[in-house]
Amino acid sequence: MTKYLVFGHKKPDTDTIASAIAFAYFLEQEGHEAEAVALGEVSGEPVFALEKFGLPVPRMIETAANEVTHVALVDHNEPQQSVDDLDQVQIDYVIDHHRISGFNTAQPLYYRAEPIGCTASILYKMFQEFGHQIPQNIAGIMLSAIISDTLLFKSPTTTEQDKAIGLKLAEIAQVDLYEYGLEFLKSGADISKQTDEEIVDGDAKNFIMNEKNIRIGQTNIIGFEEVLARKEGLLEVMAAKRAEMDLELFVLVITDVLESNSIGLAVGEDLRVIEEAFNTEIKDQQFELPGVVSRKKQVVPPLTAALS
Amino acid sequence: MTKYLVFGHKKPDTDTIASAIAFAYFLEQEGHEAEAVALGEVSGEPVFALEKFGLPVPRMIETAANEVTHVALVDHNEPQQSVDDLDQVQIDYVIDHHRISGFNTAQPLYYRAEPIGCTASILYKMFQEFGHQIPQNIAGIMLSAIISDTLLFKSPTTTEQDKAIGLKLAEIAQVDLYEYGLEFLKSGADISKQTDEEIVDGDAKNFIMNEKNIRIGQTNIIGFEEVLARKEGLLEVMAAKRAEMDLELFVLVITDVLESNSIGLAVGEDLRVIEEAFNTEIKDQQFELPGVVSRKKQVVPPLTAALS
Repeated sequence: MTKYLVFGHKKPDTDTIASAIAFAYFLEQEGHEAEAVALGEVSGEPVFALEKFGLPVPRMIETAANEVTHVALVDHNEPQQSVDDLDQVQIDYVIDHHRISGFNTAQPLYYRAEPIGCTASILYKMFQEFGHQIPQNIAGIMLSAIISDTLLFKSPTTTEQDKAIGLKLAEIAQVDLYEYGLEFLKSGADISKQTDEEIVDGDAKNFIMNEKNIRIGQTNIIGFEEVLARKEGLLEVMAAKRAEMDLELFVLVITDVLESNSIGLAVGEDLRVIEEAFNTEIKDQQFELPGVVSRKKQVVPPLTAALS
Repeated sequence: MTKYLVFGHKKPDTDTIASAIAFAYFLEQEGHEAEAVALGEVSGEPVFALEKFGLPVPRMIETAANEVTHVALVDHNEPQQSVDDLDQVQIDYVIDHHRISGFNTAQPLYYRAEPIGCTASILYKMFQEFGHQIPQNIAGIMLSAIISDTLLFKSPTTTEQDKAIGLKLAEIAQVDLYEYGLEFLKSGADISKQTDEEIVDGDAKNFIMNEKNIRIGQTNIIGFEEVLARKEGLLEVMAAKRAEMDLELFVLVITDVLESNSIGLAVGEDLRVIEEAFNTEIKDQQFELPGVVSRKKQVVPPLTAALS
């Protein structure tokens, strides 16, 4: 029996929290001791789902090596998105649906990544393969992760597998998929109680593109009016982050989850690379991203290409 | 439908060849076009297995991007072990059982690694999960890979999963596992047609230990008599390689696959570190390695410890 800490990326979102909880439960079924923890404060959307399904909010950690020697990563693999002392623990498992970047181990490990909408969908398949039942509350949080990552199957990252698995999880969780899905998405898109800092940086991630530091945030909203009324404040936070983190670019993708459409805000020395990447025009640091809902599929690749 | 080239590492061994063939077949079942190819001449052990099960020897390639835009890697992930123009193609699949090192992608991909004895064992599980039948000849070559990588389940890298999967593959391949296993291992252990260079360097790998270059080769034989009759020639090749590659040490592990026992030959300025690592005495550059069969698990770790 090994004792594991299981965690997703910093700035935890619903998939990171749900997958940590689901995989910790999975490891317990495999005879290990495992605890789902979070690399940052859990707020907003995932809290709504945790409350809905009666699950506790995972404890926050700063470092892992002071508690365990073995860890499992979910929903990420890039060291800068992970726990600060990752190099001082042994990574035995990675379950993820992102590109692989900067990830190295000294030992063979269990690594399972698939190019599908959600880490929780991969975990569903692993529960099947290993013959473990999924309890109702864990099915509920896994379903929430799929709804969150696929925007209720509207994101181009969605696969037929995510849809089929979502339907099965809704059955186990005993909720109506579309009714709960809209209720859940609306809870995450309510920015009235969020600070400018939370909107800008709540889900932001750093990417190294052609040796440059690029930070890309994404916020879900319903209707652009409310968020654009706060544009000046948002740009100020972005400029401050850029100086603080020595960024080439900070891009915020503002996504209307009901219309499946986005607007971008950008801060940087030279924004022509954004015009090139998205074949668009920038006015007052703002640009259209029609039909864009996925940072991973529709923002990172064209920006990477334009920068290289 | 995507067209794939599927390949394992340079200096192809049985697992690399078998897994390329099996995964190319798997991709065809998934509706893709796929061809198993080799990054180097296929000789010895894998050729025996291919002939036994009536499979053609995979074509050799030097580069991939001149033929396809998409590739699948099996049995390796480190770029220096892969095709030279790996950075010019998109890697959609990796199926492997090694550590992850230096591997990066721009896109999400299907990556499945497990810490078990053989890549072919992981592929067997994928055929099960996806509901694809394994044809008799492909089961035979996959079985050969498991026998090769685990030395018929005697290597400490062997897991219970490799054993159970080996038994199932032997059934599909319609061979007696132990009878065929011995016949196959003997074929790979026939050094009568190998040059001294092939014996010494055919499967040699470089390791950096405490900032020193150490090269460790391994050759499988049956009975030490024949190989030790060629000791002088082998040591000459080792000394030449040492000078050419600026090596601190060149160690050749000669493994009797039937007795699960090894003898080492060593070339270097100061061989006391070997006496320390393996708690042994060196006579005429030769030493005993009782019970040792795995370079990865039984040679590299003690030598690394002794050198640090």
